[in-house]
Amino acid sequence: MQAIIITIGDEILIGQVVDTNSAFIGSELNKIGIQVKQIISISDNAYAIQTAIAESLGKADLVILTGGLGPTNDDITKHTIAEFFGVKLVRNQKVLEHIQKLLKYRGVNFTNLNMNQADVPENCQILNNLNGTAPGMLFKTSNNKVLVSLPGVPFEMKPLITDELIPWLMKSHKLPLRKHKTFLTTGVPESSMANRLVEFEKDLPESMSLAYLPSPGILRLRLSISGESEPELAKIFEYHARKLETYLKKDLFGYDSQTLEELTGEMLRRNKYTLSTAESCTGGNIAHLLTSVSGASDYFMGSVVAYSNKIKENILGVSKKDLEEFGAVSKQVVIQMANGIREKFNTDFALATSGIAGPTGGSDDKPVGTVWIALASHLKTIAIKFQFGEHRQRTITRSSYAALNMLRLQINKIVEKTVEKV
Amino acid sequence: MQAIIITIGDEILIGQVVDTNSAFIGSELNKIGIQVKQIISISDNAYAIQTAIAESLGKADLVILTGGLGPTNDDITKHTIAEFFGVKLVRNQKVLEHIQKLLKYRGVNFTNLNMNQADVPENCQILNNLNGTAPGMLFKTSNNKVLVSLPGVPFEMKPLITDELIPWLMKSHKLPLRKHKTFLTTGVPESSMANRLVEFEKDLPESMSLAYLPSPGILRLRLSISGESEPELAKIFEYHARKLETYLKKDLFGYDSQTLEELTGEMLRRNKYTLSTAESCTGGNIAHLLTSVSGASDYFMGSVVAYSNKIKENILGVSKKDLEEFGAVSKQVVIQMANGIREKFNTDFALATSGIAGPTGGSDDKPVGTVWIALASHLKTIAIKFQFGEHRQRTITRSSYAALNMLRLQINKIVEKTVEKV
Repeated sequence: MQAIIITIGDEILIGQVVDTNSAFIGSELNKIGIQVKQIISISDNAYAIQTAIAESLGKADLVILTGGLGPTNDDITKHTIAEFFGVKLVRNQKVLEHIQKLLKYRGVNFTNLNMNQADVPENCQILNNLNGTAPGMLFKTSNNKVLVSLPGVPFEMKPLITDELIPWLMKSHKLPLRKHKTFLTTGVPESSMANRLVEFEKDLPESMSLAYLPSPGILRLRLSISGESEPELAKIFEYHARKLETYLKKDLFGYDSQTLEELTGEMLRRNKYTLSTAESCTGGNIAHLLTSVSGASDYFMGSVVAYSNKIKENILGVSKKDLEEFGAVSKQVVIQMANGIREKFNTDFALATSGIAGPTGGSDDKPVGTVWIALASHLKTIAIKFQFGEHRQRTITRSSYAALNMLRLQINKIVEKTVEKV
Repeated sequence: MQAIIITIGDEILIGQVVDTNSAFIGSELNKIGIQVKQIISISDNAYAIQTAIAESLGKADLVILTGGLGPTNDDITKHTIAEFFGVKLVRNQKVLEHIQKLLKYRGVNFTNLNMNQADVPENCQILNNLNGTAPGMLFKTSNNKVLVSLPGVPFEMKPLITDELIPWLMKSHKLPLRKHKTFLTTGVPESSMANRLVEFEKDLPESMSLAYLPSPGILRLRLSISGESEPELAKIFEYHARKLETYLKKDLFGYDSQTLEELTGEMLRRNKYTLSTAESCTGGNIAHLLTSVSGASDYFMGSVVAYSNKIKENILGVSKKDLEEFGAVSKQVVIQMANGIREKFNTDFALATSGIAGPTGGSDDKPVGTVWIALASHLKTIAIKFQFGEHRQRTITRSSYAALNMLRLQINKIVEKTVEKV
């Protein structure tokens, strides 16, 4: 089965908005073995919409439109589709009741504009939009092709895809089976990882593939399989997935949509550990990542962002002599920062960062991108020097993940040792 | 002049990568009055590329392709275009010299694959790619249409658009004149702003338009004009731009690509003020925003992220009694946090936040999204209560901008008063 995705909206064509809907839809279709042939963004006028629908139905079996379903006059998708099929709009009672219920719940007045949203082309099948007033609509053409129209608001569109359209497609069409799993790693550059996995990739059967998805500090590896028979497929996939894990070893920190901050937080919570951070070059970004996770107050006590040397001295107790002798970006200072915050905030672990995020401030000795990270615990305080390159934001992000990763590896070691003792 | 943008790459179709190139190109073309009719993403195979080129040249005057120009075998765009025009590839000496120079500078070995990158279709005009080895290529068709092929790496593509293609288009084509300016505001919701600007928008001539571009905490307003004669255009534009400023008043904080953290930092630096922050619900995000700006150490001393009440007490000196009586999310506590950090870090200004970012932790009294923000200075400490809704990340972002905005308005007031006195 081949698909074309059409996003409607002038705001996309003039570059005001980046079309992220198509990537989401493409990814979801790909997971169930539907190949996306094209993604097209068009203007919100009737001629452009009708032309794109006609052309796309000529090229693909499934055409998905997003956008142009709002209650106002400039939202013309629904009328254009009705015209395309030569049918009338009819009021759908179930949709009407849903709209009334939703608006009442939100404390919003029901207007004529909302009433019109319950009118749909008479040949359509409704896809329930639990998060909005515009229903999703599915049409079957005379030659067994499928046209789907969805609202453009991501918050409404996403559940319509995952909870309504995908199950319908899987039930009504014979699709090749596909399976995916994403392995999350940190601390290993893409090229080193590719070297490490040469043998693993060579041994993959033709039905399987591995994709490298790098972003600053995090490298995601997506393993995919496609084939015909479910039980066999699952077995082969499982075999190679386990094998991949033996190659990734301790650099693997999670799967799919998990995050390093969420998983590190979970490890702290599970072991009843607490954490504090003393941040210089990361400027509060580690604290920001940790507190982006709901419930972080269970294990994260807080941070001191020590951007000036005075604060490193006065609040964290770093020796003035060492600051002068070794500089703020040094092993000596970052260790004292970690020890200082751990004592002051009375936590089990403490992370500290000090580096030159750039673009200025570098020297021959300590070029831009030099970052010292320390981790203090009841065992000892360790410090590692990193070199993260010249891009300020990237250095901040990479330093933050490197720090969280040091903590993750340390907790793993402690837990392993405890298990050994038992 | 109408354009179609084609991005080539399977990674876009399967949703691994969001196509941000098209938004950039669309925005740049729109600025010089070229209307983007469609954006199309296609697979990287020769048939898909040739079909898309042929169809698009049938519909538009300008077709811009990005992607598929790398040195490896799966990069087929160049060969496909040569085949499309029925021409040969010929070695371009200038391109070859550029590639050799660039690789030498980067300390990379020159290989046969790089040599091939200097081969271009014989009917093409070179667009110089200073940041990479694949040149941009421009083709004029027999019926005066233009086809452009650019590398897909944003870092290489962007200068090729702004420094090579746009100047060439402006020189070789008579384009309608366009002018844009984006006005940055914060603290006013989109709907309130729309109400405020009803009269302003009504008085705009037909050649002008105003676009609302909202994002959490920041509302950008883009004023545009298009027409024929430059001096007159500039005059009309200037008149309405000034008028818009009188409507926006103090809510206007900057223009175009500036940021609130950058401008607030600039105000601190200019007035030789220093700042510290005490962050509870923003969890270090204000510090993170401030330190994303290079040179922030001139005015930003640091932050205490006080996620636990103990730290509010012990480090910031918040009264235990008040924490118990009024709760951490209260006027009393946030004021003491601001005063505490200002004293401890010895800064001119201090910002403090305390709120319920959610999704849990709300009550009838203090629902999720309740945030108190305080600003301490030598004058007095002020505190404001906000209600930012139920989305955790959005509440963190909006709280951070609201805090920076309180500081911005306060410094403005002080500076105004000083000017009055003088």
